[in-house]
Amino acid sequence: MEDILARVVAPLPTYETRDKTPPPPESHSLDFMHFYKSLDKEDRPGLLAQLSRDFGVDHRGVSELAAKLQDSQLRDPATVLQVEDRLRYSLTPRYKQLLNHISRVEGGVKFLVDLRADLLETLASKSNESSHVKDLNGTLKSLLSEWFSVGLLRLERITWLSPCEILQKISQYEAVHPVRNWTDLKRRVGPYRRCYAFTHAAMPGEPLVVLHVALTEDISDNIQSIVREVATLDSEEDVNKINAAVFYSISSTQAGLQGVDLGNYLIKRVVRELQSEFPHMAQFSSLSPIPGFSSWLQGLLSQYRKEGRGSDLLSEQEWKEVEQATDSSPGTQTVDALRKLIGTSEWTRSERLSGVLEPVLMRLCAWYLYGEKRRGYALNPVANFHLQNGATMWRLNWRADTSPRGVANSCGIMVNYRYFLKETPKNSSVYLQNKSIMASDQVLGLVSQYQKNSKL
Amino acid sequence: MEDILARVVAPLPTYETRDKTPPPPESHSLDFMHFYKSLDKEDRPGLLAQLSRDFGVDHRGVSELAAKLQDSQLRDPATVLQVEDRLRYSLTPRYKQLLNHISRVEGGVKFLVDLRADLLETLASKSNESSHVKDLNGTLKSLLSEWFSVGLLRLERITWLSPCEILQKISQYEAVHPVRNWTDLKRRVGPYRRCYAFTHAAMPGEPLVVLHVALTEDISDNIQSIVREVATLDSEEDVNKINAAVFYSISSTQAGLQGVDLGNYLIKRVVRELQSEFPHMAQFSSLSPIPGFSSWLQGLLSQYRKEGRGSDLLSEQEWKEVEQATDSSPGTQTVDALRKLIGTSEWTRSERLSGVLEPVLMRLCAWYLYGEKRRGYALNPVANFHLQNGATMWRLNWRADTSPRGVANSCGIMVNYRYFLKETPKNSSVYLQNKSIMASDQVLGLVSQYQKNSKL
Amino acid sequence: MEDILARVVAPLPTYETRDKTPPPPESHSLDFMHFYKSLDKEDRPGLLAQLSRDFGVDHRGVSELAAKLQDSQLRDPATVLQVEDRLRYSLTPRYKQLLNHISRVEGGVKFLVDLRADLLETLASKSNESSHVKDLNGTLKSLLSEWFSVGLLRLERITWLSPCEILQKISQYEAVHPVRNWTDLKRRVGPYRRCYAFTHAAMPGEPLVVLHVALTEDISDNIQSIVREVATLDSEEDVNKINAAVFYSISSTQAGLQGVDLGNYLIKRVVRELQSEFPHMAQFSSLSPIPGFSSWLQGLLSQYRKEGRGSDLLSEQEWKEVEQATDSSPGTQTVDALRKLIGTSEWTRSERLSGVLEPVLMRLCAWYLYGEKRRGYALNPVANFHLQNGATMWRLNWRADTSPRGVANSCGIMVNYRYFLKETPKNSSVYLQNKSIMASDQVLGLVSQYQKNSKL
Amino acid sequence: MEDILARVVAPLPTYETRDKTPPPPESHSLDFMHFYKSLDKEDRPGLLAQLSRDFGVDHRGVSELAAKLQDSQLRDPATVLQVEDRLRYSLTPRYKQLLNHISRVEGGVKFLVDLRADLLETLASKSNESSHVKDLNGTLKSLLSEWFSVGLLRLERITWLSPCEILQKISQYEAVHPVRNWTDLKRRVGPYRRCYAFTHAAMPGEPLVVLHVALTEDISDNIQSIVREVATLDSEEDVNKINAAVFYSISSTQAGLQGVDLGNYLIKRVVRELQSEFPHMAQFSSLSPIPGFSSWLQGLLSQYRKEGRGSDLLSEQEWKEVEQATDSSPGTQTVDALRKLIGTSEWTRSERLSGVLEPVLMRLCAWYLYGEKRRGYALNPVANFHLQNGATMWRLNWRADTSPRGVANSCGIMVNYRYFLKETPKNSSVYLQNKSIMASDQVLGLVSQYQKNSKL
Repeated sequence: MEDILARVVAPLPTYETRDKTPPPPESHSLDFMHFYKSLDKEDRPGLLAQLSRDFGVDHRGVSELAAKLQDSQLRDPATVLQVEDRLRYSLTPRYKQLLNHISRVEGGVKFLVDLRADLLETLASKSNESSHVKDLNGTLKSLLSEWFSVGLLRLERITWLSPCEILQKISQYEAVHPVRNWTDLKRRVGPYRRCYAFTHAAMPGEPLVVLHVALTEDISDNIQSIVREVATLDSEEDVNKINAAVFYSISSTQAGLQGVDLGNYLIKRVVRELQSEFPHMAQFSSLSPIPGFSSWLQGLLSQYRKEGRGSDLLSEQEWKEVEQATDSSPGTQTVDALRKLIGTSEWTRSERLSGVLEPVLMRLCAWYLYGEKRRGYALNPVANFHLQNGATMWRLNWRADTSPRGVANSCGIMVNYRYFLKETPKNSSVYLQNKSIMASDQVLGLVSQYQKNSKL
Repeated sequence: MEDILARVVAPLPTYETRDKTPPPPESHSLDFMHFYKSLDKEDRPGLLAQLSRDFGVDHRGVSELAAKLQDSQLRDPATVLQVEDRLRYSLTPRYKQLLNHISRVEGGVKFLVDLRADLLETLASKSNESSHVKDLNGTLKSLLSEWFSVGLLRLERITWLSPCEILQKISQYEAVHPVRNWTDLKRRVGPYRRCYAFTHAAMPGEPLVVLHVALTEDISDNIQSIVREVATLDSEEDVNKINAAVFYSISSTQAGLQGVDLGNYLIKRVVRELQSEFPHMAQFSSLSPIPGFSSWLQGLLSQYRKEGRGSDLLSEQEWKEVEQATDSSPGTQTVDALRKLIGTSEWTRSERLSGVLEPVLMRLCAWYLYGEKRRGYALNPVANFHLQNGATMWRLNWRADTSPRGVANSCGIMVNYRYFLKETPKNSSVYLQNKSIMASDQVLGLVSQYQKNSKL
Repeated sequence: MEDILARVVAPLPTYETRDKTPPPPESHSLDFMHFYKSLDKEDRPGLLAQLSRDFGVDHRGVSELAAKLQDSQLRDPATVLQVEDRLRYSLTPRYKQLLNHISRVEGGVKFLVDLRADLLETLASKSNESSHVKDLNGTLKSLLSEWFSVGLLRLERITWLSPCEILQKISQYEAVHPVRNWTDLKRRVGPYRRCYAFTHAAMPGEPLVVLHVALTEDISDNIQSIVREVATLDSEEDVNKINAAVFYSISSTQAGLQGVDLGNYLIKRVVRELQSEFPHMAQFSSLSPIPGFSSWLQGLLSQYRKEGRGSDLLSEQEWKEVEQATDSSPGTQTVDALRKLIGTSEWTRSERLSGVLEPVLMRLCAWYLYGEKRRGYALNPVANFHLQNGATMWRLNWRADTSPRGVANSCGIMVNYRYFLKETPKNSSVYLQNKSIMASDQVLGLVSQYQKNSKL
Repeated sequence: MEDILARVVAPLPTYETRDKTPPPPESHSLDFMHFYKSLDKEDRPGLLAQLSRDFGVDHRGVSELAAKLQDSQLRDPATVLQVEDRLRYSLTPRYKQLLNHISRVEGGVKFLVDLRADLLETLASKSNESSHVKDLNGTLKSLLSEWFSVGLLRLERITWLSPCEILQKISQYEAVHPVRNWTDLKRRVGPYRRCYAFTHAAMPGEPLVVLHVALTEDISDNIQSIVREVATLDSEEDVNKINAAVFYSISSTQAGLQGVDLGNYLIKRVVRELQSEFPHMAQFSSLSPIPGFSSWLQGLLSQYRKEGRGSDLLSEQEWKEVEQATDSSPGTQTVDALRKLIGTSEWTRSERLSGVLEPVLMRLCAWYLYGEKRRGYALNPVANFHLQNGATMWRLNWRADTSPRGVANSCGIMVNYRYFLKETPKNSSVYLQNKSIMASDQVLGLVSQYQKNSKL
């Protein structure tokens, strides 16, 4: 193992000869790729650790130049720039060249994307020595960011006339609302639907991020009407019935491109595309799932039960109704009954239970999305994504996803993040810099109900 | 002017928020591009100087981190890595972000390529403050190197069925052996010829580097047979007559991509392409011009005349023949006669003169190519290019380019740099690292004749 | 209804003005198409009958010219030619013009193909007045033959990269060995398989006739190894393992193109294609089903039972074995037992029964294919197709299609029609003209066993 | 020669076996094509004569069936239809099959198009035996009409991005206003211009008929502004400046497709294309040359001079002016002077002469276009083409083509045939059936001036 690394990871040329050094033979890159792929999954972290540790930056050289820079502060600006440039160069990890050369080999870029997926997995498992591996990850991420810069991406519209290979992948990658069969897939690329993907010249036939759009009369308040409705597959689109574009699914397909911002750009490009196809279209919105709401809620109930603060969540009247509806005795038992209730989907089949729970769950969900934070940003990752893009938290929708999955994840609630095009840049800045969330009156109303109740 | 820069060049986010900062609105990039293009040619260097000077690296920040790194030497490796990463980040010039954002705009990459052409022009004119501009150039070059990495380039074969737009550009860009008309052009993409180009997704329809190849029975020893011969335009290629691939012209089209190695990769890709089309092909060679030989020779003669060392260049017998052939008296006057003679192309029309000059010029030319150096590498840029690629200086050819241009530039001599595929990687390393040139017996023989004569 | 016909079917211009008559407005064609498509299925034959009867040939005009031709026999050849040309023109049915104009409208050709399918259905149901309808059918068929002439067809290779729309159709049209799911489909266009189709410019995206080919080491003797085998979907083809091309399915997709010879040409084109891809390939053969064998056999047994001639079919020894194997008493009852036996697929699961039946069924099947005729040509339509193309009846294969369908249709037997390329033209002529079938020794041997047994 | 025909032209199968006869081997077609192409130009008519004479219709068979038809009149309709069908079949010339088979071979359709060009040349030279050759021509024309039916043609827009091969052909085929160089060509496919062609699947890369369109503010009254104007080649089209589409050149490229109506359909398709690109465009017109006007005029003057009826052409006042302008004496001499004058282009450079001639030439030209007929239709072929298409003779334009060619052919006059889309079908019928020409007031006014003058 050491043999191969020592052989294929060339030493960094000196600063003076850096433009005069020929690239190593392509076979070095191929050898490394072959060796890496031949390793068992569990042996790869070891190799990556070694690569990052033994073939990284020459710390001594950096240190010397840093010292020199201190001296040079006294001298002329040109010298400062010169030393800075040398310092910058000396901060290049030796393995960066290997990554660069691999990218030039056929299939090399895809290899590096997959290698980064391995890296991220390793980092997630928090093994030791992770600071070198973290550096390797940072270096690779910044290279990938250059290669997957938006100027190099190609927007493709996927239709039923696209190659089967692509459509099959679109189907496999759809994580939000799984595709059930080919008829289902055909509908998702058929009339009143648009499916767009970014692809990249170095990874042909591989959609990197996929956006599904429904063209509707009004902003949809449930997903059934989009993915279940028996749309006439062969009908012609009636432009007069198209007023809104609803982004109902966005999926990144490459784990190794985490942190390389593609989804944001894809939404912007698609908006431009749609505006040129439908000049009068004025409503753009997501219809988004709320992963994590149910488990957050279970946790909350469990905690309040322990703390005996149930009344901070539901009003007395509401508890009473739950009691009656669940045939439970008051107090702790009712909290348990409630927890059990929302642990299955049975309540959705009862008009009465559903009626009792709607105000409660909507209020709690609004708070979950708007009020729960991580490092100051929205805890819910989907919310965070759209808020970063400059969207407004616009509408919570009851009974919006009645699939087992939808009920299990978010009690069937979904949310629209709406894109008011003129305001997205400002919203995005405000969110990212001030961490403050733009929300509609409906959302704010629910949030304030929650706060009133829980005396926040 | 300051206004616009201050507005569009965002400050570098802090290290902590670097992944949390939204990109500026696209309009910033567009504004800058528009403003820059609207400037008069002579006002651009000023803007570039200002951009590079006032929106570069935060030297104080760098210095502080460099100091910190000194301290941190005592501490654990993880901290060292951390500080190095911060230092690396702090060495990012503020304008780098602008360049990055411009690259994402439609037409942005082409804009930056052209901007770099301006930068190189400014640097060539050696105006003051060039150290900042040099830094800007270095930053842009390294970005372009990533974007124009070979993995992102597409090899296109150009034929008579290619779009007229591309063929017109191929014609315009051909600097080595100018295309005279469309019939000429048609021949250069017709049977027994191949024309390849690299293109890039971000600059569609724009060939970046173009390679012309002739498919011949033997390695060609003159250019007339390639670009003048009345090849039957509509004939079918006879595979049995194709034993050699002669690269007779390679042109880079984008001044702004100077230093971004494309030609080398293009030759390698084309060799692979040709090998797959003609599995039995075994001979690969350039047929290259020798720009600068004539003027070097004139300079040499002028100098030797001054120094009275004419006999170091030609033997007594040779001088006598020149005397007779030019009707001049011996000594200084003969040198002048010789200079005058090779200053026009008349001698080429005389069998006798030609016969007298052949051994002399071939010998001197071999020396020019093999012996004349700049910083240890071949002075002649074409030689330097092919030697870097790992080619062998294989054969000097007399009367190889009898066009006025050919006679004026290199006394009609051309040279084959031959690619022995198995040896090119090794040759390339040896040349770049040891500066030693691989040459054939013919070339070495001529060189040693020269040396014997001039008592070197 | 009469209204529309009278309006859209223009009268035939006079012979003199035939080149001077402007085409009717396109709207006439569109009106007819619209009207026809709006008719209920059962009303269409009426319209077609009326069109063919009332807008056909002007019999009086024809008759007059025929009479004139009789006179003209006396006169000069130029006059004869002239009258013949007038006669030929006068034999043009008036509706032919309508068909011609429809073909020029977008979607018109496809409309006519579908209309012909209706015509063929009408004719098959043998309603009265069919002689006019038959004429209409003949006229339309000859027009379609021109439009679908091979020079106008495009060979497309279908792969997993082809549009989903096409692949879905390929799947739907596959009548011989139905496609079970998309993985199955993917395999049929994957490694070691080829799928080709003819398409036509006037019916884009519509495969007209589809040929499935397996690339194998030897000519396959069963279909399971082709459509069921768990081939590694992503394996690379090993050219050294490809010696034979087995045409295992050919399907015409357009009922309306019956009698327009496409399959024959497709096989020839594909052979050419394969020869250029695999220059050394020497074996070309079908692996074909034998539809109709089982029902023919049941009929035969039933008849022989009635006539008491059972011993003409099986030898005494064979009957005895059947008796034992089926636990039946001798004579009529055994015949019944045999009929019952081959009426289900149970026997295929018994080694013993299978062993008893193999020689019997193979012999009878060989006779069915070789000896049973209709108007002198092979009764079995698949046999007739390949024999017309010049193939040789090469090998009967036992247990070649063990699917329920295969056992039900042909007792699991399949046959290879082999294409010896040098002999196909001759074989084709001999079969079509002399009605004699080229067969291998295996087939002829089985046939002669049958004949010996049945004292033919 | 006879050998080859006897070998490759198969006998017509009997009526009964016509669907059972295999096509001859492809080699027959290839042999014939090869043989024909190897013949010297002058030997081809002989072959065609022999083919048409010896391999035509079986006259005896036709005659017998014609007789039978007479008998059959007595019998039932089904029998009549049957005999008619046999008669129709028997009227098939034997060589028709050869033509059909050739069309299926690669390059076969193009071969037949070229063969027909030879046929037309032979017929034009009126050699004897032409009645058989005429029949062959008629048969081939009707086959070509089927193959080049509009449903099988593809409309292609030619731009600067089209393959060079096509653009070179476009340039070569442009007969109306010759293309001077590649810049000129680039302009004709650049902004404010459209160039469309019909191509056919069986003749890839070959434009069959080409239409050049200028997009203008008003219907152009001269050709200089279209083909000479220094339009900014790289300007963007301003949709607001596009109100009219001017068809300024239409060229058929295949002599062998004479009589196969393509130009008419191309104009209609292009109009549809332009309407979809520019929904508000309302003006469609040609700007057409008037070939033949000058020579017609010379003939007229010569005749009137002989007949001394000069005063029927010009008024006394006009003659006087010509006299003065040409310094000639009255009478015959003035007519000669006038003839000489318009025989060169000098008069166009004199304001005065030009002024004198304008009313005279415009009047005569209007009459030439409107009044001169051949078999009742417009004598001028361009007029006849557009009038057949349903255009209106809309405006004569003075000094509309000041090129030497334009002055020589039509005294610099050009004419707009305008397409009023709603009226073209009606106009077309009226012209073709009643031979009456739709013309504007300007044209009719000029015509009536002419008539008044010449006392018609």
